[in-house]
Amino acid sequence: MQRTLCTDLPTATPGEPVRIQGWVHRRRELAQLTFLVVRDRSGLAQVVVRGDAAQGLPPEETPVEVTGTATANPQAPGGVEVTDPTVTALSDDADTPPVELWRPTLSASLPTLLDHAAVTWRHPVQRAKWELAAAAMKGFRDTLDAGGFTEIATPKLVESATESGANVFQVDYFGRPAYLAQSPQFYKQVLVGVFERVYEVGPVFRAEPHDTVRHVAQFLSLDVELGFIEDHREVIQVLRDVVAGMVEAVGTYAAPAVERLGIELPVVLEEIPLLHFREALEIAGAPADEPDLAPAHERALGEWARAEHGSDFVVVEGYPTANRAFYSHPDPADPHWSRSFDLIFRGTELVSGAQRLHRYDDYVRTLEERGYPYEPYASYVEAFRRGIPPHGGFAIGLERFVGRLTQSPNIREVTLFPRDLHRLAP
Amino acid sequence: MQRTLCTDLPTATPGEPVRIQGWVHRRRELAQLTFLVVRDRSGLAQVVVRGDAAQGLPPEETPVEVTGTATANPQAPGGVEVTDPTVTALSDDADTPPVELWRPTLSASLPTLLDHAAVTWRHPVQRAKWELAAAAMKGFRDTLDAGGFTEIATPKLVESATESGANVFQVDYFGRPAYLAQSPQFYKQVLVGVFERVYEVGPVFRAEPHDTVRHVAQFLSLDVELGFIEDHREVIQVLRDVVAGMVEAVGTYAAPAVERLGIELPVVLEEIPLLHFREALEIAGAPADEPDLAPAHERALGEWARAEHGSDFVVVEGYPTANRAFYSHPDPADPHWSRSFDLIFRGTELVSGAQRLHRYDDYVRTLEERGYPYEPYASYVEAFRRGIPPHGGFAIGLERFVGRLTQSPNIREVTLFPRDLHRLAP
Repeated sequence: MQRTLCTDLPTATPGEPVRIQGWVHRRRELAQLTFLVVRDRSGLAQVVVRGDAAQGLPPEETPVEVTGTATANPQAPGGVEVTDPTVTALSDDADTPPVELWRPTLSASLPTLLDHAAVTWRHPVQRAKWELAAAAMKGFRDTLDAGGFTEIATPKLVESATESGANVFQVDYFGRPAYLAQSPQFYKQVLVGVFERVYEVGPVFRAEPHDTVRHVAQFLSLDVELGFIEDHREVIQVLRDVVAGMVEAVGTYAAPAVERLGIELPVVLEEIPLLHFREALEIAGAPADEPDLAPAHERALGEWARAEHGSDFVVVEGYPTANRAFYSHPDPADPHWSRSFDLIFRGTELVSGAQRLHRYDDYVRTLEERGYPYEPYASYVEAFRRGIPPHGGFAIGLERFVGRLTQSPNIREVTLFPRDLHRLAP
Repeated sequence: MQRTLCTDLPTATPGEPVRIQGWVHRRRELAQLTFLVVRDRSGLAQVVVRGDAAQGLPPEETPVEVTGTATANPQAPGGVEVTDPTVTALSDDADTPPVELWRPTLSASLPTLLDHAAVTWRHPVQRAKWELAAAAMKGFRDTLDAGGFTEIATPKLVESATESGANVFQVDYFGRPAYLAQSPQFYKQVLVGVFERVYEVGPVFRAEPHDTVRHVAQFLSLDVELGFIEDHREVIQVLRDVVAGMVEAVGTYAAPAVERLGIELPVVLEEIPLLHFREALEIAGAPADEPDLAPAHERALGEWARAEHGSDFVVVEGYPTANRAFYSHPDPADPHWSRSFDLIFRGTELVSGAQRLHRYDDYVRTLEERGYPYEPYASYVEAFRRGIPPHGGFAIGLERFVGRLTQSPNIREVTLFPRDLHRLAP
């Protein structure tokens, strides 16, 4: 007999035999009968066990197979339950879970949630968060595939740190030092020289020495880079389409998860409101000589975008060049400002991007101006003697995106098995 | 004016203005005129420059923009060329490339190919290999998405080595030791407990101390795991569909790359020929007490599958339990043999998989029988007290798949920036 998924049970013909598989979500013993709620990847189903059959039913979280009769019952979830069942355990009795997974909400503290992640992710509301993540990845890739981008896979073991010397993990690489890549920045830039338009979905590593709610030591970075651009505005347009594709995919492929979480998906306008850094400071009520936007400023900008444009997103461009990565392209009209941008989602920075430098001489001059030594950057910078067109890109932190979607206070709540200063397991 | 991709030039109306962008692939100066072949991500286009305009044209590999007139010429690639052009360099003149990229084949030695990977990947035939890889990843994911699988992203920094103590990279993790994950084995197994069916596309790390043509220190692993199975045969069926999906996607999304490489895509039959390990030894002419298949045996089996079944693939199941990973499920009918399998593609092992143990007690007994200490495996094994259904899975090495498709003698030829004993850059 074919397996029926729990959410498909309502489509079964009453009186017909059915077979379901899943975990014992809840075992509720009454005087006359036992209700067994079975959970599978799709949802829940109710099984009614009467008489002797109710003896020795496996405890919660044990995987089971149930064959029985589909029976209409307006009080059952979906209006159909399984009666007259044969319940077969598919493994030994499960240990009592560290948290009660059958309760509608998971009230465990964050440390408990994380210590027992392999179990706590089973809770339907918790699981829903990752279902958003999986759908978002699909939307990311589908949008870029349609735009002529090539997916790449780059080395995570590198000879030197690109982004900054600090916050990098050192590896014993056959007896010599190597480092875990903090981003695929160099590789995506040189691969623009090959494929013009590239993206990567892969882990990046930051030896973040501070315990914050926004940082973990490994996260999934959704990286994009494209060549033959006029300026950073073309990159912002691609970013807009990518974010719209991610939100749309969440709505399409993770609709039950969205419903379970009770969240509202954000609005991605055709044109995301765009502010220059100077205007952004003004709107946020910050002094005109601030070098960067503080979290409070980003919150103010989020409120402004919602109030003025009904938008959950706002892009700020033109951050001061001196405050951005050295490979950011200055604004030719006034090199004090850069062709960089951030995307602010509901008042928090979600994405950083920019047009990059593409000429070797510009790299050399910038390193000099900043007082950076040439040698550690030599192999990076010399790649630009090989003919790289004007290009730019951005990176989206997947878990940060999901964290904002679900309004999770801590990034760890939406990371499958987070790594940080204190946590290396499970 | 909209940009026209080189391969779309034949669809331009003769006499109309066009704009193309790309790299100077070849600059051929004749007495009366200069031919400029421009290469973009789609292919090549011919630009004809006459008179004074032919002075000071940028050298090969410089990115350029060309505006001019689309002109029919039966001798041009695709029958249309660009005449009366304005050529604008989009960066400084590129250095002379280390290899002549305009030649139809890339004849550089492997070390040259790898030392200058950022440039040599630009060669249309070389680039085609990665285009196969990108399409294969898409086919992998699309097949599994359609089958109810959830994409996961698991930690690459782990507390202890799952597969074996050797060949593991050690990391300085905030002052204590951590290791780079050799596979997502543990995580995909426990996440079967959450999502039932999972897959991951991610890097795995092996500190491979030997210099072989088949091994690198980092490769992209396409991992699959599914629960509620009867036995390993269900896993083999999923593997068949996944490989068929990958091959089909290569044919659909990378057709120009397949043509450029001049390769023939493999046949994936509805039912891949399946042999028990004992039969496989017999067909390969090996002694009945061999514990494993040697490369020569795999080649013989590849020939057998082609001759007897017209198949590029053959599955061997039932390898001796003692010779497989400790988490492999024995055959209940005779535990000397296991419910494990390999997929052999054109005479080389491409995929390993198995039904896994799913009961805590079985893990404990197996560790004892093998004389493995409990402690290092404790957190792995104790996850199976939480109720994990019968499950199994497999892993495909992406670069190995592409290497077989393209008949590349060395895995490094199909890895974007390979890492090995000697190579940590570029």
